[in-house]
Amino acid sequence: MHVVDLNCDIGESFGAYKLGSDSDVLKYVTSANIACGFHAGDPATMRRTVKLALEHGVAIGAHPGLQDLIGFGRRDMDISPEEAYDLVVYQIGSLWGFARSEGAKLQHVKAHGSLYNMAARNAALAEAIAEAVYRVEPELILFGLAGSELIKAGKKAGLRTASEVFSDRTYQSDGSLTLRSQPDSLITDERRSVEQVIRMVTEGKVLSQQHVDIPIQADTVCIHGDGAHAVQFAERIRRSLAEASIVVQPVGATLKA
Amino acid sequence: MHVVDLNCDIGESFGAYKLGSDSDVLKYVTSANIACGFHAGDPATMRRTVKLALEHGVAIGAHPGLQDLIGFGRRDMDISPEEAYDLVVYQIGSLWGFARSEGAKLQHVKAHGSLYNMAARNAALAEAIAEAVYRVEPELILFGLAGSELIKAGKKAGLRTASEVFSDRTYQSDGSLTLRSQPDSLITDERRSVEQVIRMVTEGKVLSQQHVDIPIQADTVCIHGDGAHAVQFAERIRRSLAEASIVVQPVGATLKA
Amino acid sequence: MHVVDLNCDIGESFGAYKLGSDSDVLKYVTSANIACGFHAGDPATMRRTVKLALEHGVAIGAHPGLQDLIGFGRRDMDISPEEAYDLVVYQIGSLWGFARSEGAKLQHVKAHGSLYNMAARNAALAEAIAEAVYRVEPELILFGLAGSELIKAGKKAGLRTASEVFSDRTYQSDGSLTLRSQPDSLITDERRSVEQVIRMVTEGKVLSQQHVDIPIQADTVCIHGDGAHAVQFAERIRRSLAEASIVVQPVGATLKA
Amino acid sequence: MHVVDLNCDIGESFGAYKLGSDSDVLKYVTSANIACGFHAGDPATMRRTVKLALEHGVAIGAHPGLQDLIGFGRRDMDISPEEAYDLVVYQIGSLWGFARSEGAKLQHVKAHGSLYNMAARNAALAEAIAEAVYRVEPELILFGLAGSELIKAGKKAGLRTASEVFSDRTYQSDGSLTLRSQPDSLITDERRSVEQVIRMVTEGKVLSQQHVDIPIQADTVCIHGDGAHAVQFAERIRRSLAEASIVVQPVGATLKA
Repeated sequence: MHVVDLNCDIGESFGAYKLGSDSDVLKYVTSANIACGFHAGDPATMRRTVKLALEHGVAIGAHPGLQDLIGFGRRDMDISPEEAYDLVVYQIGSLWGFARSEGAKLQHVKAHGSLYNMAARNAALAEAIAEAVYRVEPELILFGLAGSELIKAGKKAGLRTASEVFSDRTYQSDGSLTLRSQPDSLITDERRSVEQVIRMVTEGKVLSQQHVDIPIQADTVCIHGDGAHAVQFAERIRRSLAEASIVVQPVGATLKA
Repeated sequence: MHVVDLNCDIGESFGAYKLGSDSDVLKYVTSANIACGFHAGDPATMRRTVKLALEHGVAIGAHPGLQDLIGFGRRDMDISPEEAYDLVVYQIGSLWGFARSEGAKLQHVKAHGSLYNMAARNAALAEAIAEAVYRVEPELILFGLAGSELIKAGKKAGLRTASEVFSDRTYQSDGSLTLRSQPDSLITDERRSVEQVIRMVTEGKVLSQQHVDIPIQADTVCIHGDGAHAVQFAERIRRSLAEASIVVQPVGATLKA
Repeated sequence: MHVVDLNCDIGESFGAYKLGSDSDVLKYVTSANIACGFHAGDPATMRRTVKLALEHGVAIGAHPGLQDLIGFGRRDMDISPEEAYDLVVYQIGSLWGFARSEGAKLQHVKAHGSLYNMAARNAALAEAIAEAVYRVEPELILFGLAGSELIKAGKKAGLRTASEVFSDRTYQSDGSLTLRSQPDSLITDERRSVEQVIRMVTEGKVLSQQHVDIPIQADTVCIHGDGAHAVQFAERIRRSLAEASIVVQPVGATLKA
Repeated sequence: MHVVDLNCDIGESFGAYKLGSDSDVLKYVTSANIACGFHAGDPATMRRTVKLALEHGVAIGAHPGLQDLIGFGRRDMDISPEEAYDLVVYQIGSLWGFARSEGAKLQHVKAHGSLYNMAARNAALAEAIAEAVYRVEPELILFGLAGSELIKAGKKAGLRTASEVFSDRTYQSDGSLTLRSQPDSLITDERRSVEQVIRMVTEGKVLSQQHVDIPIQADTVCIHGDGAHAVQFAERIRRSLAEASIVVQPVGATLKA
């Protein structure tokens, strides 16, 4: 039996500013990465988003980002491992407050944007993040790019990890994502996206841009939540996985099994 | 036997900006109110401050404030009870992250500055704060001005409460603090300050500005932490309490007894 | 000949967060109040918005607000007159940077949200704001609620002022707006809105909620910019004013005449 | 006759947080770089600092930094040239507001911290900053590390530039500063510091770490303003320059001559 998790970034509104189609995309995903107020999100949004995820039976995770609201946490910053540790502890804690006050538990932690990307490549940052997660709660599952430093650091720290794959990105033969600056970095054909995911889940392989099959661990698939199109695609991939007899469930349920 | 707690606001530095004499004042107090990043404090400061409090055997509490860093949380803002609830949940959670990662527990929550003052008078805000504390962790002790709406709301919510008194402020016959805008609102004579505290703890009374003895509950005394003078006074009051055979210990230890 | 200005708040996006239909509403208004980064707006948005206003031939004004991004500047804060002065100087300056770099001039200043409302009632705040505007540039026109303390303070400071009226709000016999908490504070019937504006401009009168005609100065009408409906209404009021032979032009052009 | 400017970063306090010995160091410098609220500073501090500089007859400049208050603008961020342009326009404008309201003029712009360092190496960032300065006010003087991309970009944009040298840093043979991570990057001997400055000003040369004399343009010397020691050193270098018959005056006065 093949199993996979679908995760989505949600709770990215801020004050008067609304972003995303949270209640729509929550129908199709199994894990929600909730922004914690640094790159996006605010206390009221966090409370509402935790409730919304609970209502949809979706597992809850913290989505800590860089303290760069104006840049949405998408600009690399030269932070020290200690700074990464501190901002992850702080943000997990803040979401824990809302999980706790709503009677929920946190399943996982997924770093956001540049923090995720920097930690994929930089072992020192990755280890700091893994340590932060472990010290707050060793039962938390650490999400990271499949094959990245973050996954290695998580395992080394004693955490359960979830290797994340992308339906709309192409891969290089070394397992890295094709840089967005390159042609063909994005897969815009939905059928090809779905096929790539199904093959990653069922065969543990993906065809690289260099036309080589490479092994890949696919515990969870990143689903986008902005715009009507994104929600449609979430619906399609959820249905296609079911048709391929792949069980879609929160990664926490799978790892417990 | 008479018992009292001494509490102090600490961890108010921010980035390159240093404030307070935390390691000095921690020698004399028994409960530390740690800023959580809204009115003051930042993740690195929170981690260091939690460690410092642990090293000194001082009980740890969250010190949530208004989201007004530039005003240090001291300017009244017209926030809704729901907004008060959300910012208290968020900030307790954030400090919980550091307490947890350092192997510590939170003892209490004390609102900061304008949030404290507004909640002393405004029952709806007070109830929102008490509910926030209770829903995150019902074992937390809620600090509030003796006789205030916040203490009433805490009891109503089912929380243990600690009534706070001031050594350097005079009282009105209705139990409220003399407004700072009034003459004689501050007690600058240290001997008088010490005597006021000892009488509040041992007799449960304070002489009001109108020369009437009024009853007052003194579970914890607010100690200031800025400047050499403040630390000297902390040392003096700690010593004077000992000389008066008053046990000084964290309020959590007392309420358990 | 009757003349009036139509003004609209624009440039309220922030980073990844988009708000308003700026390019649509700019077709119908003659003065643009551009957010300056405190309650909304950011440097990139300010640059784009100044350019957009210039392309549409719309006069440019600074729209300073309270430093409360999460509350969109809509929560009253207990700021001192000196703090009001400082935040107005700062924000006018910041927009001046973009006006200057795009070869434009600032026509006016309109305080935003709670700052506008507090200054309508509070003479000390109003005088601080008027002084700030005057000291930065005495040629700037100060917008304020018709009949408010802000208009009085502006005249006293030696500034030209523009008395603002609302098409979608009802008035009390003392000239104040009916509080939003009251029934019938809002006019939802578009025809009635248009008629109220035309009468204010041509007759200098408005019928109060107490069914009394009161005098009102209508130099500029506040137009909302959020949502398709708002843009439709802007188009309608612009057309209706033209049909009533009222000249619609920036208040700066009128006051020069 | 030899002439040089002494510049210092001031106005770096924020709200309740005080930093620097501004009124002391202003006795010895001739140009003040005033923080504009992004990496440090706030509106009230900017107003007070502009006044203080005027009282001391010190020329005023904007000191724009990255929007990273918690990191004091000292952490490199991957910002685009357009983002650099926007934040420089915004911050110059904000300080212009206070200069204007106090009857002063801006002499110069010096980027702060990481923005300064990144623009020293990165031509695209440097050109964006130079363009921002030029478009706001072509009479402003652009400060930059002697020999850096920023100085080149300033000249190319048609700005007057001031090449900045350091008294307490050693140089490499290519004219760059020795990285702080290297041994001997700092000059701690005050006599050697003074001699290095005097030689740079009078001979236009500095001895590199590789024991080679290299040419260097020294229009302005960076003076630190934190701590009693820094003020003492400022006094010493000012006196030593006078003893060496070097005229110390604002760079704007020199470039006009």
